Amino acid sequence: MIKDLEEILNRQISSQKKSAIREILKLTQLPDIISFAGGLPAPESFPVKELKNIVCELLDSDDAHQALQYGTTEGDLSLRELLVYRYRDQGLEIGIENLMITTASQQGLDLLSKIFIDRGDTVICGLPSYLGGISAFGFYGARLEGVNLDNHGMRADLLEEKLKKMKAFGEKPKFIYTIPDFQNPAGITMPESRRKEIIEIARKFDVLIVEDSPYRELRYEGGHQRMIYTLENTGQVISIGTFSKILAPGFRIGWLIAEKSIIDRLVTAKQTADLCTSPFVQKIAARYLEAGILDSHLVKIKNIYQEKRDIMLAALEEYMPEEVGWIRPEGGLFLFLNLPRYFNSEQLFMQAIKEKVAFIPGNVFHCNGAGNNTMRLNFSFPSKEMNAEGIIRLSRAIRKNLR
Amino acid sequence: MIKDLEEILNRQISSQKKSAIREILKLTQLPDIISFAGGLPAPESFPVKELKNIVCELLDSDDAHQALQYGTTEGDLSLRELLVYRYRDQGLEIGIENLMITTASQQGLDLLSKIFIDRGDTVICGLPSYLGGISAFGFYGARLEGVNLDNHGMRADLLEEKLKKMKAFGEKPKFIYTIPDFQNPAGITMPESRRKEIIEIARKFDVLIVEDSPYRELRYEGGHQRMIYTLENTGQVISIGTFSKILAPGFRIGWLIAEKSIIDRLVTAKQTADLCTSPFVQKIAARYLEAGILDSHLVKIKNIYQEKRDIMLAALEEYMPEEVGWIRPEGGLFLFLNLPRYFNSEQLFMQAIKEKVAFIPGNVFHCNGAGNNTMRLNFSFPSKEMNAEGIIRLSRAIRKNLR
Repeated sequence: MIKDLEEILNRQISSQKKSAIREILKLTQLPDIISFAGGLPAPESFPVKELKNIVCELLDSDDAHQALQYGTTEGDLSLRELLVYRYRDQGLEIGIENLMITTASQQGLDLLSKIFIDRGDTVICGLPSYLGGISAFGFYGARLEGVNLDNHGMRADLLEEKLKKMKAFGEKPKFIYTIPDFQNPAGITMPESRRKEIIEIARKFDVLIVEDSPYRELRYEGGHQRMIYTLENTGQVISIGTFSKILAPGFRIGWLIAEKSIIDRLVTAKQTADLCTSPFVQKIAARYLEAGILDSHLVKIKNIYQEKRDIMLAALEEYMPEEVGWIRPEGGLFLFLNLPRYFNSEQLFMQAIKEKVAFIPGNVFHCNGAGNNTMRLNFSFPSKEMNAEGIIRLSRAIRKNLR
Repeated sequence: MIKDLEEILNRQISSQKKSAIREILKLTQLPDIISFAGGLPAPESFPVKELKNIVCELLDSDDAHQALQYGTTEGDLSLRELLVYRYRDQGLEIGIENLMITTASQQGLDLLSKIFIDRGDTVICGLPSYLGGISAFGFYGARLEGVNLDNHGMRADLLEEKLKKMKAFGEKPKFIYTIPDFQNPAGITMPESRRKEIIEIARKFDVLIVEDSPYRELRYEGGHQRMIYTLENTGQVISIGTFSKILAPGFRIGWLIAEKSIIDRLVTAKQTADLCTSPFVQKIAARYLEAGILDSHLVKIKNIYQEKRDIMLAALEEYMPEEVGWIRPEGGLFLFLNLPRYFNSEQLFMQAIKEKVAFIPGNVFHCNGAGNNTMRLNFSFPSKEMNAEGIIRLSRAIRKNLR
């Protein structure tokens, strides 16, 4: 037995405290709990039958051996082409050299950290922001600086202020991390005007923008907003996409879009991370895209999710005390609740568990430790009935703690 | 366009030179080239029909939705159990808490780097050693110290000497990286006596051993050697396994075996790397194991590879000048050639390309830049005819450069 394990772990991991949130989230697995804590797509949304046909055809075809062999680090050529065509149809002019496949979008976040972050570097993120992003950057020793959101996403005035202050100290963040569409966890979408403001500031201070957009195609209402990458296509933006929310997270396929010079570095980083993403699942996804059934599938799952969202919104309207606020998300998987300032949602969590309902306390999404009076609710995974019943239970727990 | 990309890349990647080896390896893809450069399993070895049946059954079963959903970071429970049972049958006493699934063994190397290596830390590896290991450790800023191999693998006397020297300077490596079975690239297997010597030294200096063993089950002759982990099961060893060489690399499934305290840290690291390995491919692999057809499959592919190895060995005997040496590998995928000292195999590579044959120059496997007169040949991927014809071509290129 090695004697000094704690001592030989690297600095970052040996300084990690045992995650309180991981411990309490185990409680969400208890029987009879209605859990709004996850971020999972609805199992009923998976196109099982279509996928079965595709896999059978694949394994009967000449592609079978290639699907089971090592693939290129950049990703399956036909999958990359099909994704590029899809983006072009949506108005984003990129070439195949601008897109690489990753082992889901989480790997995209990891690879970006791997090539950009030295211990002590700064990354700017929203308050709140996706926990998996915060953790990935933090694992490489990034110092996270948060910028508050308003109803239109990351506040441009505060971002500019922060960059000015940093510049005065001779500092510059490695990138600005944004989730412009139906933000996880806040559910907020940046209108085009805000996107342009953020781009303007990024250009002024010569900082990269990372646009993480897993929910982009899950819009239930309101007008389509152009991608930040579409609005700034000269190399200032890196975009991250994924099949996890529109096809199946079980495939673990995502992608990165960037200038070729950046993609080249990311490919080098991916080579040491996992050599390549499974060619088998990539070829399934490529055949799924090629079959032209993704769009009708999206119509179907958007109907499922919109209905679930509407049921949760209706239950919130009906049962929540007036002190509780939220923004109506136009898409995505999440609703974010604001409680009165005196609430501590981590404490409330234990009381909610007694009422047999679970959520994620909002402070974990805040890199500055704020957000104690907030919580994230997922409406995509629980059934419609559970979405309604869970809100009834949650409002009971909240009402018991109103002052 | 970001103005100073080179400047904002982190220290490690901005110091990377453009890889000469990646550039020359592109030449191996030219038409009519017989390439011994890869490390790919034979495409004819993939059990396509059996896998098709398994995938169809999976997607018809109640498991289908779980296969397409997010999974746990540790990996699919039934796959982990089946692997643990398999190891127990082979004499390795581990529990389920000691084994986690990774996105192929390359991710295992990456995660180990991620939790152990701070910039400037030392890792000890063989001279030569697997390039993907060297690269993964190097990406996290590790300083690599090489230890020469003899016909029984890493030399214990030199290892002890190196550790003594380091200790005198108050230093200790993070781990000793070994590939005990049919080493990549050298093809050498450590006998049990050498394994025990290495363990003794690791214990004495309180250093972890990383045992990377992708080819272990591909033994064509000679006696089975117990795993280093089997010989030292008190927490001094971490083992890395994979399905890539025994089932299909296209699934990207590997695993790590270690003390629970280490597995816990690796799981945290994996969570930010890719959340989980594809549950879809994991469930296919689990059903493949459960069907009990792996062992008969192994018999089949070992026959294929043994025959290919023997053909290459016979061709070497027949055509190579007597100045060229090699060790007969008892398993695995590689043969390693030693040429007279005045040879530079990177220069020879270009001449071999003219003869329409390719290999990997041995210096890339040497962290100290040595090995200029060596080369790695893969015998698993090319056809039997190509294995013979390629050696004829290669010996022609070598003979032209004999002094």
